[in-house]
Amino acid sequence: MKIENIKPADIEKRSMEIIKETLGDVCFTPEEEKIVLRAIHTSADFDYAENLCFLNDAVHKISSALANGADIVTDTNMAKTGINKKKLESLGGRVHCFMADEDVAQEAAKRDITRAAVCMEKACGLKKEIVFAIGNAPTALLRIKELYEAGEINPAGIVGVPVGFVNVIEAKEQIMNTDLPQIVARGRKGGSNIAAAVINAMLYMIC
Amino acid sequence: MKIENIKPADIEKRSMEIIKETLGDVCFTPEEEKIVLRAIHTSADFDYAENLCFLNDAVHKISSALANGADIVTDTNMAKTGINKKKLESLGGRVHCFMADEDVAQEAAKRDITRAAVCMEKACGLKKEIVFAIGNAPTALLRIKELYEAGEINPAGIVGVPVGFVNVIEAKEQIMNTDLPQIVARGRKGGSNIAAAVINAMLYMIC
Repeated sequence: MKIENIKPADIEKRSMEIIKETLGDVCFTPEEEKIVLRAIHTSADFDYAENLCFLNDAVHKISSALANGADIVTDTNMAKTGINKKKLESLGGRVHCFMADEDVAQEAAKRDITRAAVCMEKACGLKKEIVFAIGNAPTALLRIKELYEAGEINPAGIVGVPVGFVNVIEAKEQIMNTDLPQIVARGRKGGSNIAAAVINAMLYMIC
Repeated sequence: MKIENIKPADIEKRSMEIIKETLGDVCFTPEEEKIVLRAIHTSADFDYAENLCFLNDAVHKISSALANGADIVTDTNMAKTGINKKKLESLGGRVHCFMADEDVAQEAAKRDITRAAVCMEKACGLKKEIVFAIGNAPTALLRIKELYEAGEINPAGIVGVPVGFVNVIEAKEQIMNTDLPQIVARGRKGGSNIAAAVINAMLYMIC
């Protein structure tokens, strides 16, 4: 097989063309399509054209929040690493991941709940508008739902793409029953790479 | 759908059981199976049971190198974040990612090649045994092949799981034509999450 001679600066553009050609006609808005393309770009998994759901004016609401300097709270340090912080910070936002915090580990052990759930509680203390980017733990989504329904948090939106086999499908269905703006990968798939890709796609549309 | 009541400490074990049940009979060695399970665990993508190739005594060679304190060089900061550095450092190893280094950016721009290719050259300067963990750039694999054939580097092994649409399939096929110990995700799929998962699976078998 022959290596295609292509300049580094053109690789992403060519990749997106190939993904679009492979996808064919889709029924997304142009903004949603950019998000779907970037999720496929990071995974080479075309299932994301089927499973990504955009609810409650999610792209507009989350993008507006990011454009206005909202912070991001994520449940995975890999997503934190993958999110384009230069773009985010140019808008006034920061990414927080509390997963490795000692107080989170202690509280989770004491109550025998996941660290991710405790991280969502810690997010309630932030004095800024928040977008959640959940790429790992379904328990994070479940705790966000509880905190939202208890009036303790009111995020601008959620990127809800935890991955896995225990309570992942169920947690996504539960969060989808709320009126929160959300981009959810229905089913088992997702991950920190998908969470970062979805956020980055919106950042690239803004700046 | 009902949320399963499960203790945080049991989630991973239960996930692995579900993956094994879903996979059914496979023809991997027990060590290879642990790697496949962890790749599926991080992606919920069962294609990794089909596309992961273990060549030239890869698991034994790479695991032995890691057990003896080899360093890891990766082309993505997300993989660096995802690799269990506590385990790696307990064995005497470190993870290097040169992608954000200013000298790498300058050299890549000057020669109009990818930063990932320049990073592989920079790895030649390390005075330790190296395992490569490539989760993003096919050009990294191509440059490793050239450097190996020129006698400039002799890595203990490669985790070769770049993802994408331009030269990804081709670069993997080319590296598979070498005699280097390697774990490669044939086809377009892979990513930083898969690179970290494959490395971590080996670390968890060691310590």
